[in-house]
Amino acid sequence: MFYTIDILGTMAFAISGVLIAMEKRMDLFGILIIAFVTAIGGGTLRDLLIGVTPVSWMGDITYTYVIIGSALLAILFKDKIYYLRTSLFLFDTIGIGLYTVVGVEKGIHAGLHPIICIALGMITASFGGVLRDTLCNEIPVIFRREIYATACILGGITYFILIYLGVKNDYIFMVAGAVVILVRLLAVKLKIALPSIYPNEN
Amino acid sequence: MFYTIDILGTMAFAISGVLIAMEKRMDLFGILIIAFVTAIGGGTLRDLLIGVTPVSWMGDITYTYVIIGSALLAILFKDKIYYLRTSLFLFDTIGIGLYTVVGVEKGIHAGLHPIICIALGMITASFGGVLRDTLCNEIPVIFRREIYATACILGGITYFILIYLGVKNDYIFMVAGAVVILVRLLAVKLKIALPSIYPNEN
Amino acid sequence: MFYTIDILGTMAFAISGVLIAMEKRMDLFGILIIAFVTAIGGGTLRDLLIGVTPVSWMGDITYTYVIIGSALLAILFKDKIYYLRTSLFLFDTIGIGLYTVVGVEKGIHAGLHPIICIALGMITASFGGVLRDTLCNEIPVIFRREIYATACILGGITYFILIYLGVKNDYIFMVAGAVVILVRLLAVKLKIALPSIYPNEN
Repeated sequence: MFYTIDILGTMAFAISGVLIAMEKRMDLFGILIIAFVTAIGGGTLRDLLIGVTPVSWMGDITYTYVIIGSALLAILFKDKIYYLRTSLFLFDTIGIGLYTVVGVEKGIHAGLHPIICIALGMITASFGGVLRDTLCNEIPVIFRREIYATACILGGITYFILIYLGVKNDYIFMVAGAVVILVRLLAVKLKIALPSIYPNEN
Repeated sequence: MFYTIDILGTMAFAISGVLIAMEKRMDLFGILIIAFVTAIGGGTLRDLLIGVTPVSWMGDITYTYVIIGSALLAILFKDKIYYLRTSLFLFDTIGIGLYTVVGVEKGIHAGLHPIICIALGMITASFGGVLRDTLCNEIPVIFRREIYATACILGGITYFILIYLGVKNDYIFMVAGAVVILVRLLAVKLKIALPSIYPNEN
Repeated sequence: MFYTIDILGTMAFAISGVLIAMEKRMDLFGILIIAFVTAIGGGTLRDLLIGVTPVSWMGDITYTYVIIGSALLAILFKDKIYYLRTSLFLFDTIGIGLYTVVGVEKGIHAGLHPIICIALGMITASFGGVLRDTLCNEIPVIFRREIYATACILGGITYFILIYLGVKNDYIFMVAGAVVILVRLLAVKLKIALPSIYPNEN
């Protein structure tokens, strides 16, 4: 089941890359690269930082097929993709829930401090988007608005609270992931953003 | 001979970095860094992804000398460099042919899937340019036009077809490299680009 | 004492990240990430290039606390921070002196060529700023003006001259760091920049 979620998340990330690359009027190759970077960028950065090489996506060719497949489908049916907006948002949100938990676990496995593990979870879930925006010559969208990385961080904190409470591993995985997903869904639904630090915007 | 090609390719990449950095009116230091990043960025990213450290250029000081030397010459003779345009284009094209094959070989050596090896060849040959453009605050040119990465990918595919056909290693190296070079030369000569996916541009 | 300098340098780098992120009107999360990237980006790139993982800041949680702490203080007292401009400039300059020497030493420890070690020193001291500017969608400021990286390179050269002269390790550390600091202070004081290579600017 986790694998299915992972694949759905990868698809959603890849498609979000395609949409932004097409806005920038990139060619077919550029679009595929941006789809890739969006889908595997966060996990790649995490693996490099903790020294896991070859990085994960290079060891399982399925990701490559899923990314190329969903990118090509997204290009082909680009006029229809807006109808899928809600599904894509859901896949993406479920994806960051899963990616966060996977990142936290890899940090624990590498023997790192809880705060660093939470950072790794957040990096896994959100730095694909940061790289995507940087390559598209934009200031990363998650630096400017939206409870996105914050949801990942709250999920990571939940993870360690549950360990502290002695909860069993499988439940921790699911509850921490669910916190990420719920926080993001609620924030978007209720239009919650981080408090502005710029006085004239209040 | 391969070493000579490698050096010529490194020179061409470094000089292409100098030209773009000067357009952006960077100072001497910025120009040198962009020359470096263009010349060694692709190989560095490849080495990081497969876990080969210290990365290659750090182990052979010749690259550093060649890059600094050609960058300084390019700055000094910047008014004359446009006369060398055709030679530079040739060096650059021969360079990506070589870099592609080297990248594919390192992937095979690391025991990776053929498709991942081809991706590594393409990354080696073209991500120096991607990093150069990103640091110069431009959307990478290879994401928008020109059969460049596509030539690398076709060369990588040729490599594995030749292995499948049982061709001897030395020939594979040369034929796959030649495919990259020929595809790029033909594409530029015949002004072939990837088919547009934006309807109003056809 | 070195640790104190390191912490002061980290603080200065983090605060410089905060100031630029706020100019770009990023949200709280974006500001924290830019503070982090500015403070640990150079050392992280150095560690990745030579294969030291998990990268340094992940192994000592103090850096994370210092960065988050100084970033939050900088946001809170943002109106007052301009009064601290001179102190910050001093911390930053002392920081790059220290970072340069640390980078050179890690290169020597990894058995690399002196020129590569000097490059590592410069990367440690200045690539946090390069990443900061790239994520903020600007051409890196050190590519366009200011004797900054040049000061690091001169400090690195001093390091190897002192080794060659047989000076004791502790003195080398201090003298090479002092050269970086003095060159930068003098250059800013006397408004010295690299000689322009663009004729119409002379």
